[in-house]
Amino acid sequence: MKTTIITVGKEVLTGKTINTNLTTISRMLNQIGIDTNRSFVIDDQKEEYHKILDFIDEDLIIFTGGLGPTIDDISRETVIDYFEVEASTNEEVLERIKLYFDQIGLKMHDTNNKQAYFPTKSIVLNNNLGTAPGVIFTKGDKTIILLPGPPHEMLPMLKESIEYLRKKLNIKLYSKGFKLVGTGESAMEKSLVGFYELHPNVNIAPYASIGEIKYVFTSNTVTDLENAMTEFKMKYSEYIYGDLNDTLESAVVELLTKKNMIISVVESCTGGLLASIITSVNGSSKVFHESIVTYSNEAKVKYLGISLDTLSMFGAVSSQCAYEMADNLYKKTISDVCISVTGIAGPSGGTIEKPVGLVFFGINLKGYTKTYKKMFNGNREMIRKRASIYALNLVRKKLIMK
Amino acid sequence: MKTTIITVGKEVLTGKTINTNLTTISRMLNQIGIDTNRSFVIDDQKEEYHKILDFIDEDLIIFTGGLGPTIDDISRETVIDYFEVEASTNEEVLERIKLYFDQIGLKMHDTNNKQAYFPTKSIVLNNNLGTAPGVIFTKGDKTIILLPGPPHEMLPMLKESIEYLRKKLNIKLYSKGFKLVGTGESAMEKSLVGFYELHPNVNIAPYASIGEIKYVFTSNTVTDLENAMTEFKMKYSEYIYGDLNDTLESAVVELLTKKNMIISVVESCTGGLLASIITSVNGSSKVFHESIVTYSNEAKVKYLGISLDTLSMFGAVSSQCAYEMADNLYKKTISDVCISVTGIAGPSGGTIEKPVGLVFFGINLKGYTKTYKKMFNGNREMIRKRASIYALNLVRKKLIMK
Repeated sequence: MKTTIITVGKEVLTGKTINTNLTTISRMLNQIGIDTNRSFVIDDQKEEYHKILDFIDEDLIIFTGGLGPTIDDISRETVIDYFEVEASTNEEVLERIKLYFDQIGLKMHDTNNKQAYFPTKSIVLNNNLGTAPGVIFTKGDKTIILLPGPPHEMLPMLKESIEYLRKKLNIKLYSKGFKLVGTGESAMEKSLVGFYELHPNVNIAPYASIGEIKYVFTSNTVTDLENAMTEFKMKYSEYIYGDLNDTLESAVVELLTKKNMIISVVESCTGGLLASIITSVNGSSKVFHESIVTYSNEAKVKYLGISLDTLSMFGAVSSQCAYEMADNLYKKTISDVCISVTGIAGPSGGTIEKPVGLVFFGINLKGYTKTYKKMFNGNREMIRKRASIYALNLVRKKLIMK
Repeated sequence: MKTTIITVGKEVLTGKTINTNLTTISRMLNQIGIDTNRSFVIDDQKEEYHKILDFIDEDLIIFTGGLGPTIDDISRETVIDYFEVEASTNEEVLERIKLYFDQIGLKMHDTNNKQAYFPTKSIVLNNNLGTAPGVIFTKGDKTIILLPGPPHEMLPMLKESIEYLRKKLNIKLYSKGFKLVGTGESAMEKSLVGFYELHPNVNIAPYASIGEIKYVFTSNTVTDLENAMTEFKMKYSEYIYGDLNDTLESAVVELLTKKNMIISVVESCTGGLLASIITSVNGSSKVFHESIVTYSNEAKVKYLGISLDTLSMFGAVSSQCAYEMADNLYKKTISDVCISVTGIAGPSGGTIEKPVGLVFFGINLKGYTKTYKKMFNGNREMIRKRASIYALNLVRKKLIMK
């Protein structure tokens, strides 16, 4: 099914808003096997709609934006009129819009009336988070879907549309996946060379972000999908921390919760980022009670009694210091897992022996401390992020081995 | 000048990559007064280039993507051939590509040769961060600019292209702006109603993000620009923390550095985020030595001696607790500024008296402590972010008053 996505809105064409709707829509279509041929961003002018609709030859046309109540919002009437389908005010939709205004305690304006103008034969996509309902209708062999612009309003309607397309096209396509940490995309792709050919009926796609990769598996048979996933899981179990809905931090908090363990953190170069990532998880207070940022040498001595010998002989960025930080944190907090991070995030502060990107980690599990040394690429922000992810992964690996 | 931006790449049409290049390019064009009419995303197929180029009628055509060395990368030859301009291998460009490979210690492949295929009459946009140079050329009254896809390679060439356009079109447009915190977009827009009319020759555009807004001023006369900005600055001085290149955290670190002051932080609900934001600034180690996350009540008692009476009578989320946290942190650290944050980030943990989003702050400046109470909207992530920004702004305001 040839598909196009048309984003309407001046705010995208002036760089005010990033077109994340295109990413969300095309990704969800992709996961049910529908390719997006082309995409357009247009201004909210009637003639622009017409020019683009005259030009395209796709069977599935998805609009996002322009469904609001203002005079600039003309997607609904313009597209309905263009396709010359019978339309009128849908009383049920009108009632829902009125109800929405009642719920938020405001009076509905007359301008909102037009938001209930619908093709007589159409599927209404209700909006529980705003006034603009979406719509699916057909004309000949073309399917037209109109979605609102605000991403949080758009998403539930997109999901409904995907289910509609799944049924209509009789798509038996199943999608699942894994999230991985501790490996890189190019290393994985090299390793996977033969794997893809062994699973010709499964589309396996990597999506890389800083320090992490997810692999999405798509197939039209459950058996093929499960086989490929089982094999993948066996091969890469050390890197897999969860499925597509997990985050590394939620996986770590979950592991700690299951094992009834408490974690404490002492950070130097990450400066609170690691603690902040752990506490971003709802429910982390069960497993996380305290942490310290010892950014200066004085703070390392004051809070954790790091020996002056260690600091003068090896420096704060050293295996020895990382060891003492984690070890002494354990003595101070009696947590089950204590982790320390000390390194050089840059851009300044690097030397030939200790370049920017060098980070040492200490991890104490139930009284026993080990240290790790790593070099990270990137700017200050990326080094801090990669170091935090590495630390979380150290914790995860210790916990699953236990 | 009618303008279109064409992004080339399957990865944008499958949702792998967000089209941030469109945002960057259209925003920078906008700031020199060039409007983007429409934008396209196309697959890297020769016929797709032709279809789109046949369709469009813009005078300025900017491509991004498809300049790499692989057989899929066909932007350069396809667009040059389409416009039928004379082209050949540019020996200087070829030398630069060879030099780039020497520098990264790799041997150049033959496939890279095509990256030096350039219109005889053209402006080369050199790439210091990759192999793909960009190009500007004209055909009749059309200007065509080809930029690479990777954003960090694209940006320097875009800046060169903007300068080219500025000269070519004799654009005398000046752009500057302010960043504001502590106010909202709708409050500002209401307050600015009359202001816009007083400055008809200045385009004033707000760009809002969580907890912050920037206002970009653009005009073709320096005097009008300066007048509007001076008036704006007088009116909103309490909210303005810097110009467009500043961040709130860099402004705070700079203020502390100037005043030779040390800041310490104790966090509950923000869980390290505030410390992490401060330490994201290069050079923050001069003004930031230590911080504590006291997530549990026990940690509040252990690290800061918060009285059990306070915790049992008022709870950890209270003005009293925020006061003691900041006050005791001052006693413990002898920092010049101590700030505390305690609140309910949600989604769970809220009550009728203390709902999700309620946050208390304590700030101690040179021994004198004051507390603040705020309600923040949004999910856990947004509440934590807004609370951190609010805390930073409290520090900023205290420091500029001093």
